[in-house]
Amino acid sequence: MGQALARAFLAHGHPTTVWNRSAAKGDALVAAGARRAASVADAVAGAGLVVVCVVDYAAARQLLEPAAAALRGRTVVNLTADTPDAARAMAAWAADHGVDYLDGSIMTPTITIDTPDAALIYSGPGDLYRRHAATLAALGGTQRHLGADPSRAAAFDVALLDLFWTAAAGMTHAFALAKAEGIDGADLVPLAEDMAGLLKASMAEHGARLDADRYDADIAELSTIAAGLEHVVTASERRGLDTAVQRAALAQMRRAIEAGHGGDDLSVLSAALLAEREAVSRA
Amino acid sequence: MGQALARAFLAHGHPTTVWNRSAAKGDALVAAGARRAASVADAVAGAGLVVVCVVDYAAARQLLEPAAAALRGRTVVNLTADTPDAARAMAAWAADHGVDYLDGSIMTPTITIDTPDAALIYSGPGDLYRRHAATLAALGGTQRHLGADPSRAAAFDVALLDLFWTAAAGMTHAFALAKAEGIDGADLVPLAEDMAGLLKASMAEHGARLDADRYDADIAELSTIAAGLEHVVTASERRGLDTAVQRAALAQMRRAIEAGHGGDDLSVLSAALLAEREAVSRA
Repeated sequence: MGQALARAFLAHGHPTTVWNRSAAKGDALVAAGARRAASVADAVAGAGLVVVCVVDYAAARQLLEPAAAALRGRTVVNLTADTPDAARAMAAWAADHGVDYLDGSIMTPTITIDTPDAALIYSGPGDLYRRHAATLAALGGTQRHLGADPSRAAAFDVALLDLFWTAAAGMTHAFALAKAEGIDGADLVPLAEDMAGLLKASMAEHGARLDADRYDADIAELSTIAAGLEHVVTASERRGLDTAVQRAALAQMRRAIEAGHGGDDLSVLSAALLAEREAVSRA
Repeated sequence: MGQALARAFLAHGHPTTVWNRSAAKGDALVAAGARRAASVADAVAGAGLVVVCVVDYAAARQLLEPAAAALRGRTVVNLTADTPDAARAMAAWAADHGVDYLDGSIMTPTITIDTPDAALIYSGPGDLYRRHAATLAALGGTQRHLGADPSRAAAFDVALLDLFWTAAAGMTHAFALAKAEGIDGADLVPLAEDMAGLLKASMAEHGARLDADRYDADIAELSTIAAGLEHVVTASERRGLDTAVQRAALAQMRRAIEAGHGGDDLSVLSAALLAEREAVSRA
């Protein structure tokens, strides 16, 4: 990802200095016009914008801490993926060291960088974002500033990863179940695409219900949904497929049904998860 | 759902007889022109097409068995939702009793019936389906015949429910996590819709990879995906949210990574689920 980001800045005419723990990883970028720095402190010296993208915030901190003096008064955009807590801690560190800090997350794969398909989100001071937005536009696609709270981009990131990778777990299991029943992937695809379309179409209603705390069922009741998921578990186990994910989803529905929500809309599950949490913290 | 189906047949000018265990449930349909039958045997006598939609196949069987003599030589379309095994058993029962049998599943909510949004799938003898397709068209939307194997509609149904309700579990958890981080539903919606769009866009590639048994990563590696899901679990637990579904999905990824698939594409998870099953059945 770091190489894709540097290549995008170079392609849009921004003088770009690169540093990587493995110097050779920068060779192609140097050939494309980047300056190679001998150290992080050297890389950030004179930089109008410092972009960091490593494995996690612990790694980012390890790199930036020795260069704190060189970073003072500069802007760091941290595109490393991690948790909201990690983003808050990094923002606090930056504030302590006089570093202007924007946190960001890249929501799309590396190949999307510098294409219209890229999607990046940022949080931190709005004026700081606006000052650098034209430079960051080199990364392509849709760029959104989500607010001044530096943890907001990471909070969106984990929520969106939650949605996507849990859904992907369902997708991979569905294709395995179909295959076990003799249905080829290609035959399932058009109907599976319809399901993803229904999911997309349900998002706005889901968000509105949660915001309004309104869970009366007008399309499908949770108890009916749970009965459907039970068929999935039975059919999967009949074919010897692991059903830990589906059973966990079903267990969550059953807890909500036991709490009296069997006649409510699916969206009550979000509220039930939050209510369980409060029950635990009160206990 | 039964009422919506009967109403659709009536609306399209098909003489319709209704029977329900609770007779009063048919009152509105009788007012709309339906004939009320005193028993299932009475309901199917003279029927050109018998449509069944009850809670599960055990219930369907309980209704149809006493009417077996009246059903001989007629066509039953069973739109009840259940497992592929249940569909196979029902088709065998129908064959034993000289009943022409089509199995079907309704993939969309009740409110979609007799609208362009309805989606129904069928399996069983192709000529039988073609003979009744014009009548079934009253139910609206997209109608697909998926093959002669009577269990095929139920197999598609459970696979598609698997995809949808597991994805929905991810969606409900994602909105809860966002809310716990102070993000309103309405603010998450546009980005959540983008994720569902990405999921839809990934289906064709997923199906093609599984059919070709080809899992080399060209966009994201499973180990990177697992690291992202780990951030989701950490961030959720920091906010006190139950993570059983996400932990189960992560455990499945870790098993695949331990089996040597850390550098492979996400789609290897479908193959890994099928391989685990074979390993178990060999053990």
